[in-house]
Amino acid sequence: MLFQDETLDHLLPGNIKILQKKKGYRFSIDSILLAHFVRLQEGQKVLDLGTGSGIIPIILATKVKTTEIWGVEIQEELADIAKRNIAMNNLQGCVHIVKGDARNLPDRIGSERFDIVLTNPPYRKIRSGRINPLREKAIARHEIKGSLTDMAKIAFRLLRPKASFYLVYPAVRAADLITYVRESHLEPKRLRLVHPNREKGAQLILVEASKGGGPGVEIHPPLFIHDLNGQYSEEMRSIYSSITETHQSL
Amino acid sequence: MLFQDETLDHLLPGNIKILQKKKGYRFSIDSILLAHFVRLQEGQKVLDLGTGSGIIPIILATKVKTTEIWGVEIQEELADIAKRNIAMNNLQGCVHIVKGDARNLPDRIGSERFDIVLTNPPYRKIRSGRINPLREKAIARHEIKGSLTDMAKIAFRLLRPKASFYLVYPAVRAADLITYVRESHLEPKRLRLVHPNREKGAQLILVEASKGGGPGVEIHPPLFIHDLNGQYSEEMRSIYSSITETHQSL
Repeated sequence: MLFQDETLDHLLPGNIKILQKKKGYRFSIDSILLAHFVRLQEGQKVLDLGTGSGIIPIILATKVKTTEIWGVEIQEELADIAKRNIAMNNLQGCVHIVKGDARNLPDRIGSERFDIVLTNPPYRKIRSGRINPLREKAIARHEIKGSLTDMAKIAFRLLRPKASFYLVYPAVRAADLITYVRESHLEPKRLRLVHPNREKGAQLILVEASKGGGPGVEIHPPLFIHDLNGQYSEEMRSIYSSITETHQSL
Repeated sequence: MLFQDETLDHLLPGNIKILQKKKGYRFSIDSILLAHFVRLQEGQKVLDLGTGSGIIPIILATKVKTTEIWGVEIQEELADIAKRNIAMNNLQGCVHIVKGDARNLPDRIGSERFDIVLTNPPYRKIRSGRINPLREKAIARHEIKGSLTDMAKIAFRLLRPKASFYLVYPAVRAADLITYVRESHLEPKRLRLVHPNREKGAQLILVEASKGGGPGVEIHPPLFIHDLNGQYSEEMRSIYSSITETHQSL
């Protein structure tokens, strides 16, 4: 069932279907990139903080079928949409949506429960185009720190030892990201920068941080969204088609 | 005059001549990349911490002629070679080599004296090839912190307000670098990652940090040393030829 203020989107040529509000939060490329960046093994237990329409759990569940994935979403309307999306994609068996404030989760369910905690903080969503550095600068530092520190603290409590926290963030905030994640005793181990094309500065940063990891970070080859001719790069086409193919094979 | 344990290298097809020990410290591509990354204007006063054979001051002095550049070097033998290199390239008028410990410099010459302080910490020199992550990991954290913090503290004291600290460092230490530079009240404003080619992880990180700068960092397009066919990339050829051409026009 589709309400008047919703759209039903087929993700790529594949079979994943995503209900979204016409206005308000809509998933974007950063969620797809984050889901692709995560190294997920069968049997691992995953938590997505601020899952929105459930796009990341849905992509992950189609990649590794036996995994138990939880998505927490504070906005009731979005949590409802996420639940409908899970049902529509027949993933009720492995994806579970919880309506609530992620900050209360450790007290509700206990510590050291997950192998992977990830987040694409919705308040910092980058939809498309170049990031305006002035707009970024205008954002109060304490607000960023508050949000990031909250997420990192929750992740630290909920992750098992040596388990991983993943997030995607605007590249302009890379230094803050590293500082605040480390303050929560999570150590960046893998970074990847996402550029619109190979001649442009980075727009997004993808991070894997380890609970209790030692220092030393591997910085992956850059990911370019487009070729210089404006077409999706070979890697982006491959990311999109891997999602599609995995899902079609279900 | 050339001793038996020295080589006289012509830097590229240009006219820059560099005396170096056959064994021991020899400059490498990271010095050239750092010199290229620095945004130097006429009339600015520059300090190179741990100048080695003087390669960075020599490149900078050939790019912007009226600049006053100081190089400090703790090893007497290297400081002597640097002085001979300056003389051999006829740069005595603008490049000055000081033999001594950089940590004593602020007390010797006073604070807020430079527009740019830069360093390619010699103890962490990456000569060629891929960095071995295990070797990097083995380096004690406190040692890295000690060295980096020393350099950043010296830079902070010697820089004028809003002036810039530049450094090149192994990419595997990027998180430490950002943490320790910020602890010295220098804010990363520009980063650039250097990859062997576009399919390899980053090997080096180039950083410009500002004394008293606000948060927010611009991450430049990546620099690839080689094309996938193993030849120098177009940008590397351009960096080399810009050094050469500037010097030939003197």
